[in-house]
Amino acid sequence: MKLYVVGFGCGSHENMTFEADAAIQKSDLIVGYTTYVELIKRLYPDKNFESTGMRHERERVQFALEKAVEGLTVSLICSGDCGVYGMAGLAIEIAEKSFPNVDVEIISGVTAALSGGAILGAPLTHDFAVISLSDLLTPMDKIEKRLKLAAEADFTIILYNPSSKKRKDYCARACDLLLEIKSADTVCGFVKNIGRNGRESGVMTLEELRNFPADMFTTLFIGNSETRKIGNKMVTPRGYRNG
Amino acid sequence: MKLYVVGFGCGSHENMTFEADAAIQKSDLIVGYTTYVELIKRLYPDKNFESTGMRHERERVQFALEKAVEGLTVSLICSGDCGVYGMAGLAIEIAEKSFPNVDVEIISGVTAALSGGAILGAPLTHDFAVISLSDLLTPMDKIEKRLKLAAEADFTIILYNPSSKKRKDYCARACDLLLEIKSADTVCGFVKNIGRNGRESGVMTLEELRNFPADMFTTLFIGNSETRKIGNKMVTPRGYRNG
Repeated sequence: MKLYVVGFGCGSHENMTFEADAAIQKSDLIVGYTTYVELIKRLYPDKNFESTGMRHERERVQFALEKAVEGLTVSLICSGDCGVYGMAGLAIEIAEKSFPNVDVEIISGVTAALSGGAILGAPLTHDFAVISLSDLLTPMDKIEKRLKLAAEADFTIILYNPSSKKRKDYCARACDLLLEIKSADTVCGFVKNIGRNGRESGVMTLEELRNFPADMFTTLFIGNSETRKIGNKMVTPRGYRNG
Repeated sequence: MKLYVVGFGCGSHENMTFEADAAIQKSDLIVGYTTYVELIKRLYPDKNFESTGMRHERERVQFALEKAVEGLTVSLICSGDCGVYGMAGLAIEIAEKSFPNVDVEIISGVTAALSGGAILGAPLTHDFAVISLSDLLTPMDKIEKRLKLAAEADFTIILYNPSSKKRKDYCARACDLLLEIKSADTVCGFVKNIGRNGRESGVMTLEELRNFPADMFTTLFIGNSETRKIGNKMVTPRGYRNG
């Protein structure tokens, strides 16, 4: 009884690891959120897929574990890394409680901070913090506190889920908070639709990012105080003596 | 004239992406730090490798770019992701200044926070910060400030380079700082030799981590206030309502 929880990277086959591919190949059934299933289905046309809508994570994990108990080898797929805001934790938790005989194997993947960073240049060469702006499961004051402390710590900051239909102004609100601490000309970047059709990216200042129309498929990068624009790339130096 | 800067993941072929493998396959010459070249050489026995010692990063990048100018397709390899404390930034910087005709392509990889996280369970399901304890290029007071602020922000914290021959007590010093803010029973984990011979991992409390003999091949994970031990796994819940 086997469940793989698989991070498949940004969505292109090239960005997937060999073990992610092998897990999917070995699986009788691949389970995931509709958008991700559509992305991955085209790479594995002969495989069986089941998709479920957003905010049904518990049901999805439960379903995948039930199918594993029935004897199928199952892959539960997540974009990026399945441990970064993904379903790895929920799978471990539910398996431990209700499906102790299922062997759950977590397969890491390239999260958007890394695949997006490579497109922008090298924004993560020094310490960094990853923060989600989604307040679906986290109170906004906690998110705001983290933004402020991450700015004070001079981390490069990567923002996941910067906006959605219901949270149109969240990117601007986050930038306003950061601008209380960080310089308006801090080098920033965005990457949209990483590894998918309609990929876009760009480098700008924090002041410009404040008015940038980020959507739910965008990942934002806010440099530390040493981050520079080199050519059209966003680059954070290795250390403070830049040796 | 082409230089790939390639993050090859933890060192096993399975943890590599298809594009990292393709870049290495396409290259006439593969350049890297001695330890990493030894790891990767066994996967590509027919390829030409050049290795250079530690702390010679500028010379290594310069050499790789010179070989690209001579007409070779070159891969400059880094473990994990080449942008996370890696050489992507230096390659962009030196190419822009001295080798403007070389096309530099950055290929992301699975960094130890992700591959190690998958081994431990799911420590990164919520916001996190990655901090290197190496003070080779960063003043210690800056590192200590970041540790404190990351603890106050209640990030899951991943520590890279927690120790070395010259910095034997750095892990203990970092834990002492964190213990001023975080609970002594905070769930922590370590992973050693990820994807290599002699892999070890374990889950313990922050108090226990204080006396843990971390070495330079170890990555440390310090949970947030919600991180739990489930079975023998380290799991951070998705959100504060844990939905």
